[in-house]
Amino acid sequence: MSITLARIAELTGGRLAGDGARVLDRARPLEEAGPGDLSFVASEKVLPRLPGCAAGALIVLNGLEITGRDVVYHENPHAAMAQVVEVLYPEVAPEPGVHDLAVVHPDARLGEGVSVAPFAVVEADAVLGDGVHIGAGAVVSRGVRVGAGTIIHPRVVLYPRVTLGKGCLVYAGAVIGAEGFGFALVGEQHVKVPQVGGVEIGDDVEIGANSCIDAGTLAPTRLGDNTKVDDLVMIGHNNQIGRSVLLCGQVGLAGSNTIEDFVILTGQTGVSGHLRVGKGAMAAAKSAIMRDVAPGEKVAGVPHMPLDLWRRVWKASQRLPEMRREMKALLRRVDDLERLMDSEAP
Amino acid sequence: MSITLARIAELTGGRLAGDGARVLDRARPLEEAGPGDLSFVASEKVLPRLPGCAAGALIVLNGLEITGRDVVYHENPHAAMAQVVEVLYPEVAPEPGVHDLAVVHPDARLGEGVSVAPFAVVEADAVLGDGVHIGAGAVVSRGVRVGAGTIIHPRVVLYPRVTLGKGCLVYAGAVIGAEGFGFALVGEQHVKVPQVGGVEIGDDVEIGANSCIDAGTLAPTRLGDNTKVDDLVMIGHNNQIGRSVLLCGQVGLAGSNTIEDFVILTGQTGVSGHLRVGKGAMAAAKSAIMRDVAPGEKVAGVPHMPLDLWRRVWKASQRLPEMRREMKALLRRVDDLERLMDSEAP
Amino acid sequence: MSITLARIAELTGGRLAGDGARVLDRARPLEEAGPGDLSFVASEKVLPRLPGCAAGALIVLNGLEITGRDVVYHENPHAAMAQVVEVLYPEVAPEPGVHDLAVVHPDARLGEGVSVAPFAVVEADAVLGDGVHIGAGAVVSRGVRVGAGTIIHPRVVLYPRVTLGKGCLVYAGAVIGAEGFGFALVGEQHVKVPQVGGVEIGDDVEIGANSCIDAGTLAPTRLGDNTKVDDLVMIGHNNQIGRSVLLCGQVGLAGSNTIEDFVILTGQTGVSGHLRVGKGAMAAAKSAIMRDVAPGEKVAGVPHMPLDLWRRVWKASQRLPEMRREMKALLRRVDDLERLMDSEAP
Repeated sequence: MSITLARIAELTGGRLAGDGARVLDRARPLEEAGPGDLSFVASEKVLPRLPGCAAGALIVLNGLEITGRDVVYHENPHAAMAQVVEVLYPEVAPEPGVHDLAVVHPDARLGEGVSVAPFAVVEADAVLGDGVHIGAGAVVSRGVRVGAGTIIHPRVVLYPRVTLGKGCLVYAGAVIGAEGFGFALVGEQHVKVPQVGGVEIGDDVEIGANSCIDAGTLAPTRLGDNTKVDDLVMIGHNNQIGRSVLLCGQVGLAGSNTIEDFVILTGQTGVSGHLRVGKGAMAAAKSAIMRDVAPGEKVAGVPHMPLDLWRRVWKASQRLPEMRREMKALLRRVDDLERLMDSEAP
Repeated sequence: MSITLARIAELTGGRLAGDGARVLDRARPLEEAGPGDLSFVASEKVLPRLPGCAAGALIVLNGLEITGRDVVYHENPHAAMAQVVEVLYPEVAPEPGVHDLAVVHPDARLGEGVSVAPFAVVEADAVLGDGVHIGAGAVVSRGVRVGAGTIIHPRVVLYPRVTLGKGCLVYAGAVIGAEGFGFALVGEQHVKVPQVGGVEIGDDVEIGANSCIDAGTLAPTRLGDNTKVDDLVMIGHNNQIGRSVLLCGQVGLAGSNTIEDFVILTGQTGVSGHLRVGKGAMAAAKSAIMRDVAPGEKVAGVPHMPLDLWRRVWKASQRLPEMRREMKALLRRVDDLERLMDSEAP
Repeated sequence: MSITLARIAELTGGRLAGDGARVLDRARPLEEAGPGDLSFVASEKVLPRLPGCAAGALIVLNGLEITGRDVVYHENPHAAMAQVVEVLYPEVAPEPGVHDLAVVHPDARLGEGVSVAPFAVVEADAVLGDGVHIGAGAVVSRGVRVGAGTIIHPRVVLYPRVTLGKGCLVYAGAVIGAEGFGFALVGEQHVKVPQVGGVEIGDDVEIGANSCIDAGTLAPTRLGDNTKVDDLVMIGHNNQIGRSVLLCGQVGLAGSNTIEDFVILTGQTGVSGHLRVGKGAMAAAKSAIMRDVAPGEKVAGVPHMPLDLWRRVWKASQRLPEMRREMKALLRRVDDLERLMDSEAP
């Protein structure tokens, strides 16, 4: 696909300065852009990098002045770029219909415009809303409900008792609704406790590649609307996750936590079981949350403490070996002082 | 499915109190149970939550007294619930036979009652015991042996030289027997060292979704009977894991460790290579085990230390910034004292 | 397969001592080797374990003297074993051709000797070089380029805009090119920022089972030649990874890092976004890299510090509870001294 600079100005509501007939066919970062590429300048700070930039045209923040280049000025270059990107890199909508080499049970219910790719399996009593896409090799188990417009990428597995809302996006390899890790110790044997609560996912949720969301024991594991889950994230059984939560790469939640709305857990953070992480709380990368976190609190550390404290602790901790030496020296000096006092005592 | 309360009493050996004809069709936690749902009271502690509970009936711990409700009294409500759950949520046994759209090599040997779902591949010389199920899209490579009654969920990959015992359960997306991460540095190039030892898994083992168990170099990576592995766990080459071990979500084992029977490694714990973790030892979440752990020892921390010590260290560490201030103040005071002593010295 | 000891001497260029007609059919570690097995002695240190060893024959380091056994002496027993292993455990090369139950788009371009296994999908405009193998159930999306001799294992997903070089190996379940975790906050909603940069992978790269490499935002996420990625690794969008880098199990990289050539990140290490890890730097297991790391630096800790310092800090940290007690005692003694000085002051 390609687009002219004049069309970019029109599309984004920006102001054209330069050759509107210039044709662009890729969007690229400043350093990597060539003559056919569009790039952008969203801040004064990148101006020094401009002279070496070979981009064919730029979207530039209003107020900055660029000469000798073909430019569209805009109040929000990031948002404008995103609009252009959607034109240059259109999603290829899959053809509606069930591929000859897919297996869809006759008792499954498919809405309008549903597409099922090769080697996908849709079992009995599954319900796929209008416009749902089931990717190659994905498995939709019996009774699963998938809301309208939801896109299931290749090789995703949806176990029984899973419900997905509308407009969700599930990346390749994600596994939703496997039975959680629940065992009873009978004598010396771990014996499985059935986990039949399923998973209930709201609207506009994204689940990253190869992430795993386990079924609840009796009631569903839940994720609220607009929550976004990155790759290789593990969500254990019975977690109750609110809306617009962000769980970054390799985050892991043990069982039965409540993660309230707008929480952000950054990469590799873990949450022990049966905890509450309050609304809007945030954890720095690789935190281990081992007690409740208050709404709005920022935490870090293994186990976690307030972020500010953690910064100071970490700084101080690097002085620990030195502190031990100082402490020993101090002990000797106080010993000496005491000895001296004793000897001087009347 | 549904069940009457009278049948529940009979099935579990509990004592009926109330309307035996009451019909229940789901098991739910107290807070989420409605009129058609069975819930349970396993401890005095939850009694205060009963007034708001809309459950149709309850399984209640013997000795507690509940009035005005339909109840089955039982000595172990958790175990009784598990029995009822199996009735209400029956596993749908797959039809024996090989699906038309599965590819099973003529030289594979299939026991009685084996089922192979669509898009599964079973290669030459694979041996599937009686009652084995191979899920949709799973791959059983040449020569793999799967013991009777073992269930392989969708999209599992079993590489060559993998042996699974009887009654195992492998969740979707798990990869067993990929070559381990072994390289020799030749000049500046990392060159692959072949890893041909395979994987040997005992009976009654569970492997969680998207977990990876790598093949040993020359001898197998091994997991003993009744060992349970959660989701997204990584078991590197040559690990020797005993029986009834629990490896929780996102645990990672580097190569060549010995993990003895009954060890429990909780979520996100890592074990460096060539270590021994003794029988019944336990690691708190996100531990990094970097030396051997004695049998029965409880550890925590990065790297690990005894659990008790770790708790005290963590507590003390939060006072570190304060300690540094105290230390500096103390230094000044001792300086002053010394100066004073000097000046007073005769 | 099997091999005689004489052939082993010939193949490896070693010196035969003993019965050259002895037939061996497996390679095994010393402790697990039986009469039909080859094992090896690469160092003096393992000599005490020899008396109990039942191996049929041994490859032994030149200079060591072994009597009463059939032996091949060699200057590098590890390398010699690897050569023999390739004979004893030959890779079964897949038959060239497209399986009847694979779906290959007519506009895909397949080189000589390409093999596509059952249930694989190769979309339009994909380009597969000579000798490429696409495993069972793998998905090669539209426009993807795979270099000659690259092996794609079962169930791998290559998203659009992915390029793989020559001679790469991608293990089962890996997902390459899913859109990265990029969102803009619009009001209270997380709104997806398209990630169209794709992934560009060099020659001789290995990607471990179930690992995830996300597409860049505008320019590709890149991995250089000979880089090796273990299982369950997460590489976020826009990372620029050099050549011959080792990323061990469960490593996680947030977005936009530069990881220079020859870096080694050991298991479960995390790297925050927008950082530079210099050439040949190394991180100990479970490190959290949160600032730039200089070339050649060795780091450890959460967050990281120099490895040597970290060792001393960890050691000292175990004395922290004791230090707090010492500190309090010292405070009291200095209080006493000051009181005494006061009382003695004239």
